[in-house]
Amino acid sequence: MKQVSSDKPREAALTEAVLGIVGERGLDQVSVREVATAAGVSIGTVQHYFPTKERMLAAAYTEAVRRIRARLQALRVGPDPRRHMTLVLRQLLPLDERRVAESRVYLAFAAAAATSASLAEIQQEVLTELHTALTDAFATAWGDAAPRARCRLAAHAVIALADGLALHAVTTSGWIGGRQLTAAAELVLDGLQLGQLHEAQPGQPAVHVLDNAELP
Amino acid sequence: MKQVSSDKPREAALTEAVLGIVGERGLDQVSVREVATAAGVSIGTVQHYFPTKERMLAAAYTEAVRRIRARLQALRVGPDPRRHMTLVLRQLLPLDERRVAESRVYLAFAAAAATSASLAEIQQEVLTELHTALTDAFATAWGDAAPRARCRLAAHAVIALADGLALHAVTTSGWIGGRQLTAAAELVLDGLQLGQLHEAQPGQPAVHVLDNAELP
Repeated sequence: MKQVSSDKPREAALTEAVLGIVGERGLDQVSVREVATAAGVSIGTVQHYFPTKERMLAAAYTEAVRRIRARLQALRVGPDPRRHMTLVLRQLLPLDERRVAESRVYLAFAAAAATSASLAEIQQEVLTELHTALTDAFATAWGDAAPRARCRLAAHAVIALADGLALHAVTTSGWIGGRQLTAAAELVLDGLQLGQLHEAQPGQPAVHVLDNAELP
Repeated sequence: MKQVSSDKPREAALTEAVLGIVGERGLDQVSVREVATAAGVSIGTVQHYFPTKERMLAAAYTEAVRRIRARLQALRVGPDPRRHMTLVLRQLLPLDERRVAESRVYLAFAAAAATSASLAEIQQEVLTELHTALTDAFATAWGDAAPRARCRLAAHAVIALADGLALHAVTTSGWIGGRQLTAAAELVLDGLQLGQLHEAQPGQPAVHVLDNAELP
């Protein structure tokens, strides 16, 4: 037991070193040697905690995701579900220095999940968790009038929007700023809300809906 | 002149090898050695065409983007702007094997642009191009009633949505399928359309708009 508790800070320092390298220089710059140098320990020590690079990256991604989750959980659910959704979305957007750093790290791991089974597993877990929470938020906001399938789709759209906006903000220099990030997010949230109101009022003129079956 | 024309196929083969490695194993697996092996040439030959890894990656990203652009340009602009927007969005989503492969490669480079100035430059160029085209498409769809700023925001939202949905599709195994990708995209396009209709008809009840100034 003693060993576990005294090992925790060392392991956390290594994970922190990995996150620092990913954020500043990119995921491809992570190696046992670089992490050892950044954390001020020997290569053997890094290998003791993380026998493979894959496990090292998985531990770092898990930690990155834990931090984002903690921030989301700290949000108080107020009486206004629409406002709550805005608050959630803002936590996912790179609107200050801390969130820019987090987004850079998160997106590096998220993209790498395309070719890593262990990262993909973490990725799918965090997406599922967020998707469930947002589906519930839409269900609360829209009440019984909204079919669950519509809430699920809206949640998919909102998470994708947040990740896409974050990607564009952290991979360009000033191409899209904080005001545009939040305004674009609000435009979509407003539109989803209007779409649901429209759907729930059969008297309204039909929305232009395309038949997708024939499309490429 | 002769040399340029005979060099082109060799350079294209090397770029192809880079794209293959990125798509199958990830950007961090690209090295001069791996590319030489994949293309069946010597390390010296790779270095002759691409003196640095950075230039090799930039050339490969440029080629990846060129293919997506070519597919978008092949779309015929029909008389229905809303339908055109759906078609553009569908070209950006990983809806078939070819587009899945393209999305994997595009997203790997896009994420790496966070820590690479040369990739960021290409990234910003392609985003700007797409953003301008989509802003024009919204302006055509919405006519004089829509302020340019709203068209620009809607374009930001749509590109972000496409990139976010693609990211989720290629980094999870079946968490989000083709039907959900297109349905989520349509939900947002419908919402943006309704938002604009709503905006253009002042008689409608006010949309719930939040005052963002006070938010974190």
